[in-house]
Amino acid sequence: MRRLNVALAERSYPILIGSDLLQNAENLPPYLQGPRVAVISNTTVAPLYLDTLLATLEKVGVGVTPIILPDGEKFKNWESLNAIYDALLAARCDRGTTLIALGGGVIGDLAGFAAATYQRGVPFIQIPTTLLSQVDSSVGGKTGINHPRGKNMVGAFWQPKLVVADTLTLRSLPARELSAGLAEVIKYGLVRDLPFLEWLESNMDRLVAGDDEALAYAIERSCRNKAEVVANDEFETAKEGGRALLNLGHTFGHAIESGMGYGHWLHGEAVAAGTVMAAELSRRLGWLSAADVDRVRNLLQRAGLPVCGPMLGAERYLEFMSNDKKVSAGRLRLVLLQSIGTAVTTSDATREDILATLTACCHE
Amino acid sequence: MRRLNVALAERSYPILIGSDLLQNAENLPPYLQGPRVAVISNTTVAPLYLDTLLATLEKVGVGVTPIILPDGEKFKNWESLNAIYDALLAARCDRGTTLIALGGGVIGDLAGFAAATYQRGVPFIQIPTTLLSQVDSSVGGKTGINHPRGKNMVGAFWQPKLVVADTLTLRSLPARELSAGLAEVIKYGLVRDLPFLEWLESNMDRLVAGDDEALAYAIERSCRNKAEVVANDEFETAKEGGRALLNLGHTFGHAIESGMGYGHWLHGEAVAAGTVMAAELSRRLGWLSAADVDRVRNLLQRAGLPVCGPMLGAERYLEFMSNDKKVSAGRLRLVLLQSIGTAVTTSDATREDILATLTACCHE
Repeated sequence: MRRLNVALAERSYPILIGSDLLQNAENLPPYLQGPRVAVISNTTVAPLYLDTLLATLEKVGVGVTPIILPDGEKFKNWESLNAIYDALLAARCDRGTTLIALGGGVIGDLAGFAAATYQRGVPFIQIPTTLLSQVDSSVGGKTGINHPRGKNMVGAFWQPKLVVADTLTLRSLPARELSAGLAEVIKYGLVRDLPFLEWLESNMDRLVAGDDEALAYAIERSCRNKAEVVANDEFETAKEGGRALLNLGHTFGHAIESGMGYGHWLHGEAVAAGTVMAAELSRRLGWLSAADVDRVRNLLQRAGLPVCGPMLGAERYLEFMSNDKKVSAGRLRLVLLQSIGTAVTTSDATREDILATLTACCHE
Repeated sequence: MRRLNVALAERSYPILIGSDLLQNAENLPPYLQGPRVAVISNTTVAPLYLDTLLATLEKVGVGVTPIILPDGEKFKNWESLNAIYDALLAARCDRGTTLIALGGGVIGDLAGFAAATYQRGVPFIQIPTTLLSQVDSSVGGKTGINHPRGKNMVGAFWQPKLVVADTLTLRSLPARELSAGLAEVIKYGLVRDLPFLEWLESNMDRLVAGDDEALAYAIERSCRNKAEVVANDEFETAKEGGRALLNLGHTFGHAIESGMGYGHWLHGEAVAAGTVMAAELSRRLGWLSAADVDRVRNLLQRAGLPVCGPMLGAERYLEFMSNDKKVSAGRLRLVLLQSIGTAVTTSDATREDILATLTACCHE
């Protein structure tokens, strides 16, 4: 089992990474603050892993309230959140009840926001079951729901007490979702870890094939990168650099997700196409070469990811992008690549640069 | 102008108390993090004070989005919260927008929770316009909304950057609401400040008559007490004492509010009747004398407050009380008085003691 620490002073917590962790009863109890937990999962993940988790928790005498939601990004909304509150109140869960998220990013964000806000905050544990959530959303404390006017517009920073990434759960993951997770893995290499990017270029085939050891290494290295960034900028307040750099490709990606309606493109797919856009825009600013852009495109393609955005119309993209919350005082700030392995936040790109990039990077 | 500090390390903030503060343009700008604010108020308070505040803000070049909600505890719900999110998104407010609550406790709790959760948190300023909110809810960072199953069941701790208590706003306050605020003022004396309780016994008539200087003193001393307690227990996690002590009378009071339906009794009125219940139960445990209980009852009565609860039925009270979030692992923990001026949290009271107290302290 691999073990990492997210260093956030009194909010520090470990990430456990390995195979078959859900079955090991000794992993969870040290992190429970009372004898009760509520497990929040969805109709896809619960049939696969809930029984294993319940058995593990019952072995150590913990009472469990399961709360099963429908599966999908379109349920990351107020109604689902309220269903969680209702179930917690019906079961008389109090401030000592630990909420456990068992599922992907949607479940983690929903359960985390419920934990942040139920009775003004209860303890929270993440058990991410998708690659995307294992390498990204389960670490760092971002929680929230979508609003009809935009993604993640309502939420909170709420750190978990523990993250458990069991690589066995990836065996049931559809190939398309594994690829979506790889988009964020590749991001860490592009943004701040060139040696990792090179490792990914050498090992992409093993990852796509679901090689357990390669996946565990990629998850650990991704989480290590994320943990370092989060430790230095917990609340995303850094003016330069910091957490915002992890949004490479995300402002473009969010525009794709909003424009297509949530759920048509997977988040990682939208980020992949958005990452190519960011690389192409970086080339237009003179920071990357055409070969660099090809390198980014090739690696994403080998991971089974889309490298062009849908034809929303460049103006429409821009509108969605300025709805994105990474707008600061009206100026469109973007994360771009100074070089492969080094990201920057910048307002240097002109409206024309962005429109040209969008036109170049979209197809029917 | 009186000025107090709430000492919470990097979340410390000042409370300004005085007359005519809304008109003084120099008070707010140092606490704004950007050139935009959204002022959240209600249909009762906005016609009285919004123009003054807008003029003050415009004088310093700040752009304002006013968001006016219907007035009343029954609107402290998800729908109002969502109306705030909608208005913020429609006005393209970003993370640099400061939310200002202009109103009583309901507006403060709603606006504060919106600030805690809009785009995972934006800066917040409290301008409480009722005595209750000036001495209690505006200080300490508790925010939230009600849920059909219970009061304040959904919320967050989110500290303001500044609290401005303008005593001029109390001139428009109905007498009944002034009294409701005095319930919390008296609470500070009972819980931890015997000299203040004695001052209140000498000055209650001035307070009820709306004497400006007496009110400013009572607000400052109340806020000083609250700030000290909050500084030592920001997140209400202390096992003994701490913030929980400020809930004297509140578990009983919440049962009254839930049992009667929110809005029939004012919060302070329910707390007043609940405080007499807590005193009576303290007497049954041998901590207070009958004369002590009379002393509590008399002071509350002089403040124009109810000292008996409604006849909900003792069993029904108990059920509402155990729904209250101050239940720890199934045991009913209550704040009671060890003596006048000293509160404790205790699970000593038996079910029979509580039932007898409820029967003794209610009438038709």
